Amino acid sequence: MLSKSQIKLITSLKQKKYRQQHGFFVVEGVKTITELLQSHLELYKLYTTKPFNINAKDEELVSDQELKRISFLTTPNTALAIFKIPEPKPISTTGLIVVLDAVRDPGNLGTIIRLCDWFGVTELVCSKETVDRFNPKVVQATMGSITRVNVNYVDLVPFLKTSSLPVYGAFMDGENVYKSTLPKNGILVMGNEANGVSKEVEAVITEKIAIPRFGELQATESLNVATATAILLSEFRRG
Amino acid sequence: MLSKSQIKLITSLKQKKYRQQHGFFVVEGVKTITELLQSHLELYKLYTTKPFNINAKDEELVSDQELKRISFLTTPNTALAIFKIPEPKPISTTGLIVVLDAVRDPGNLGTIIRLCDWFGVTELVCSKETVDRFNPKVVQATMGSITRVNVNYVDLVPFLKTSSLPVYGAFMDGENVYKSTLPKNGILVMGNEANGVSKEVEAVITEKIAIPRFGELQATESLNVATATAILLSEFRRG
Repeated sequence: MLSKSQIKLITSLKQKKYRQQHGFFVVEGVKTITELLQSHLELYKLYTTKPFNINAKDEELVSDQELKRISFLTTPNTALAIFKIPEPKPISTTGLIVVLDAVRDPGNLGTIIRLCDWFGVTELVCSKETVDRFNPKVVQATMGSITRVNVNYVDLVPFLKTSSLPVYGAFMDGENVYKSTLPKNGILVMGNEANGVSKEVEAVITEKIAIPRFGELQATESLNVATATAILLSEFRRG
Repeated sequence: MLSKSQIKLITSLKQKKYRQQHGFFVVEGVKTITELLQSHLELYKLYTTKPFNINAKDEELVSDQELKRISFLTTPNTALAIFKIPEPKPISTTGLIVVLDAVRDPGNLGTIIRLCDWFGVTELVCSKETVDRFNPKVVQATMGSITRVNVNYVDLVPFLKTSSLPVYGAFMDGENVYKSTLPKNGILVMGNEANGVSKEVEAVITEKIAIPRFGELQATESLNVATATAILLSEFRRG
């Protein structure tokens, strides 16, 4: 049986301030939980309707109804786990790095973390206005990639200014990316959903690139930030 | 004042069967509604908290509270419109065509419609198991692109069998797309989120392509279908 204080703790973790206060975040779904149990992350508590098929101490069997009460999903899975928020690792400033300037949508951040994992980008650097990586919708969208991509929140301008890597940014009026020669190592800056890259960050970008539009004049005015990141990472990696 | 029957009609349009029965679908947000009002689509009724800045007959002013009652969004915009579902145009089987085999997530379909619009793909052909294009979450994610991409629902196998275009499909074990020579005109088949392309459809595909993974062995096992579509359309168009 779930106690009132357990339910209160879990539901509070929807909000960033309580995640920071308690040092916990929530993951749902057997597949993702299994993947996280095999990572460096430390489990605090697992609530599941069926005994788990891997050795998880701190497992507590709950009924479907109980799970429904604590789940953040409209259609709950069969398990919900609370993990401890790990200490962020320092940023390794080599290779290909993705930087996000105030990306607000949790689904977009989750998709971008998954893309980084696919394309072998291990460092994702976010402005402090970017949505929290332990937001439950972000964690859900990453599908386990969250354990393999190091996500840090920093002041972007000093970070970019002190980097020795070339700084590329996605802009509507940038150079056609299909005609650009992209380096193996560099930084790719992606902007906010509505406003793109901020003025302050734009000032420290060395190369502006754009994905050309092929539709009619009337066509959609922009690509979603996650799909644009997909295309640009593909361009950096395709060689 | 909204009548009970108006509220009942609007909220029923969340479900496909009522959209089909009434021949209506719902759009929210001033920007998208404005775009749709300028298209070939026919407005049935507009509910807005502020008078609209373009000439929209059948406009009805509502309070914020009334809008909240009829909105499908957790944070409602200032306007909600009901449009008539247009007759689908016949499929033009030339150029580059995207085919979806049982894509279920409304956000994915909406993003793919927006991508088609960006890359000048005017024909999107879906299996009958694919989510409905007038699902409110699909409409929301298309950001107005829905008026420029012709979406049809057909039996894929006979459609693909009778096409004279080469049929490409996205598979985990396909040929490296970066090393493939892609044609200007062709069909690109994308599969279901969990299961990929179905066996029946796979049998009529002529070229299997894949986006190579650059991460560690442990990395994420697949890309999201919308981000994979973004990368593959970019590859078809980049020349």
